[in-house]
Amino acid sequence: MDFTKLASKYQTPLYIYDFDYIRAQFNSIKEAFRARKSLICYALKANSNLSVLKHLAALGAGCDCVSVGEIKRALFAGVAKYKIIFSGVGKDDGEIEFALKKDILMLNIESEAELKRVEKIAENLKITARISVRVNPNVDAKTHPYISTGLKKNKFGVDIDTAKKLYIYCKNSPFLEPVGIHCHIGSQILDIAPYRDATSVTADLLKSLKALDIDIKFFDVGGGLGICYKDEITIEPYDFAQAVLANLAGTDVTIVCELGRFLVGNGGYLLTKVLYEKYNGAKRFIIVDAAMNDLIRPSLYDAYHEIEAVNKSGGGILADVVGPVCESGDFLGKDVMLPSLENGDLLVVKSAGAYGFSMSSNYNSRERAAEVAVENGKDRLIRKRESFEDLINLERECLEGANEENR
Amino acid sequence: MDFTKLASKYQTPLYIYDFDYIRAQFNSIKEAFRARKSLICYALKANSNLSVLKHLAALGAGCDCVSVGEIKRALFAGVAKYKIIFSGVGKDDGEIEFALKKDILMLNIESEAELKRVEKIAENLKITARISVRVNPNVDAKTHPYISTGLKKNKFGVDIDTAKKLYIYCKNSPFLEPVGIHCHIGSQILDIAPYRDATSVTADLLKSLKALDIDIKFFDVGGGLGICYKDEITIEPYDFAQAVLANLAGTDVTIVCELGRFLVGNGGYLLTKVLYEKYNGAKRFIIVDAAMNDLIRPSLYDAYHEIEAVNKSGGGILADVVGPVCESGDFLGKDVMLPSLENGDLLVVKSAGAYGFSMSSNYNSRERAAEVAVENGKDRLIRKRESFEDLINLERECLEGANEENR
Repeated sequence: MDFTKLASKYQTPLYIYDFDYIRAQFNSIKEAFRARKSLICYALKANSNLSVLKHLAALGAGCDCVSVGEIKRALFAGVAKYKIIFSGVGKDDGEIEFALKKDILMLNIESEAELKRVEKIAENLKITARISVRVNPNVDAKTHPYISTGLKKNKFGVDIDTAKKLYIYCKNSPFLEPVGIHCHIGSQILDIAPYRDATSVTADLLKSLKALDIDIKFFDVGGGLGICYKDEITIEPYDFAQAVLANLAGTDVTIVCELGRFLVGNGGYLLTKVLYEKYNGAKRFIIVDAAMNDLIRPSLYDAYHEIEAVNKSGGGILADVVGPVCESGDFLGKDVMLPSLENGDLLVVKSAGAYGFSMSSNYNSRERAAEVAVENGKDRLIRKRESFEDLINLERECLEGANEENR
Repeated sequence: MDFTKLASKYQTPLYIYDFDYIRAQFNSIKEAFRARKSLICYALKANSNLSVLKHLAALGAGCDCVSVGEIKRALFAGVAKYKIIFSGVGKDDGEIEFALKKDILMLNIESEAELKRVEKIAENLKITARISVRVNPNVDAKTHPYISTGLKKNKFGVDIDTAKKLYIYCKNSPFLEPVGIHCHIGSQILDIAPYRDATSVTADLLKSLKALDIDIKFFDVGGGLGICYKDEITIEPYDFAQAVLANLAGTDVTIVCELGRFLVGNGGYLLTKVLYEKYNGAKRFIIVDAAMNDLIRPSLYDAYHEIEAVNKSGGGILADVVGPVCESGDFLGKDVMLPSLENGDLLVVKSAGAYGFSMSSNYNSRERAAEVAVENGKDRLIRKRESFEDLINLERECLEGANEENR
């Protein structure tokens, strides 16, 4: 990856995605499930750029969406409607109606109240809604509390008994068709055991539904496969598949996975320029032109991202890599070993393909970064850098309206 | 505040700002410094809406800006250039040049390296740059570590000795004119002592500069005055002013304050609609249509915001108020006592005027909320709700051969 060339062509801060890496990751998980019918749904909350979606769609991926905005993105990028799933605890009426009208594969139901609303909206539309129920297996995914989702104390899904009750309710409703079963226990998971436990619990439910003549076609094992940010030992796709399939012997379900970080995380880089080097007492700071508004993971989750100098090496001194935003929470890395640096040098923040740009904001009135794809040695812009006009567009006419006599 | 009417007129989630409250806050601090020349600069990172800026500018406020985007906003909203200060640890060359060309009041310098770049750029422009130096007084503001900025281990400012050296350097440079002195120790400060300590240290420097014939006109005491989110006992403007002025007897400087949260924090409300109520085991969740992408303070700083039901009361049960975003970190309040609620009921999240919308993002492809001003009993839209088109505008033309029928 020629970071120097990319910085000079597109400026910094800049998000860069390696589309070849994303393809390889997708193929590795597809291959792991080759003995079964499978649908790999990309969890686009990780990185929802339209060109990323189109790239994955071309490989055969579906999409796991959690808002109407995400469904619209998936459709816009060319993802087939029968490969789109709608998850999330807070679907509003407009979103449900949109999803049903677009005839997507299924809605993952997260509560009894939601099921009743979906039924009512389907009835109004005179259609039958395909649904799955998200089971909360009460399994500890052993990850950051903010991204652990499979415990009773989390807001997600319903317990096994409630799930069974909801499936029976669906069976008796002309407006609801239960086609899937779903569990998802969290994100950035490094331990295979929670997957085994969660799919075992869910597979038991699947079998007991079969006994009730409720025929489930899609077994959605969620996602959350961890990636290596620093020195984590990650789960191999093959082992993940085996853990899932071990619980499904004798069944004929299509496996659905919802993977985000796994597909794009380590394919992404945040490229940034050094502005100043400074010492406060003995403490060294490298101030760069990317900030917490560009990448909030270090600040929000205390997440580690490897940071390297581009084309510079030699003896290093520990430094905090910080952005221009006016709070101490604005850091990209702490105690990073870096060589001597000066204005204009480049740093690359690694593993920034997931939950990087998608969580970025305009805090401090900073324009959001541009995004670039690199594929087969060629680079192309996939999102233009924001301008000041973009920032104020929705405000300026309100201001002028209030100010008409002064025009 | 008629929240029901506002929700039906503008939909939810919705940010609402009480412009009468903002005026009263501004006047209270201006009044506290009435015995002195003073310039109250609004720290617009707290809430940079153009109409908020215009409202404060009409009251006489200046602006404390931390990016070129913020300077552009201030100028666009009608803030006088001679009332604009440019602070921040990471000003890039383009930003410095813009500020110098616009002839704003002064640049707050945060490092020696930055001072040299400002000098060089001023020389290229053949002008003299008005500057102040931000002193890091090594005082503990006793606030959240992310918003504490006056300690040696923080990235901000320079120590006293370095500051003195920089002022002497300025004196000997034809391109630098030291007109101010600056310290800022953090945000949401509730204790008067750190202010006293910090201004005392800074006032000593002021006097020693005077002895060197370096004549400082502006004494910038920073901001950070805390507000009441729950039950905090806050500092009265009068006491704040007295603590500052006590150290400045016998001097003739103009006092500069940089206040953000104090001016707008408790004038803002985030109005949201209940989608579902749900129990996971004994745990009650109220799922609403606002989320961490709208207000990240609870998730990022573990911040408390009071949450109340609109037009509902009666015996309550503790609940977590959570949004539709797919992570457990998406919450607005934990263990909030709330009455029984159903789909369509309204909740109001208080103290949301500062660091609310300004930190909001499109995470989960959620469109950002609309913003409304209420003044003298009248409401008006000051930022339109984002649309899906706004979200994809900078990506769609980069998308190669997209599905035309979806466009």
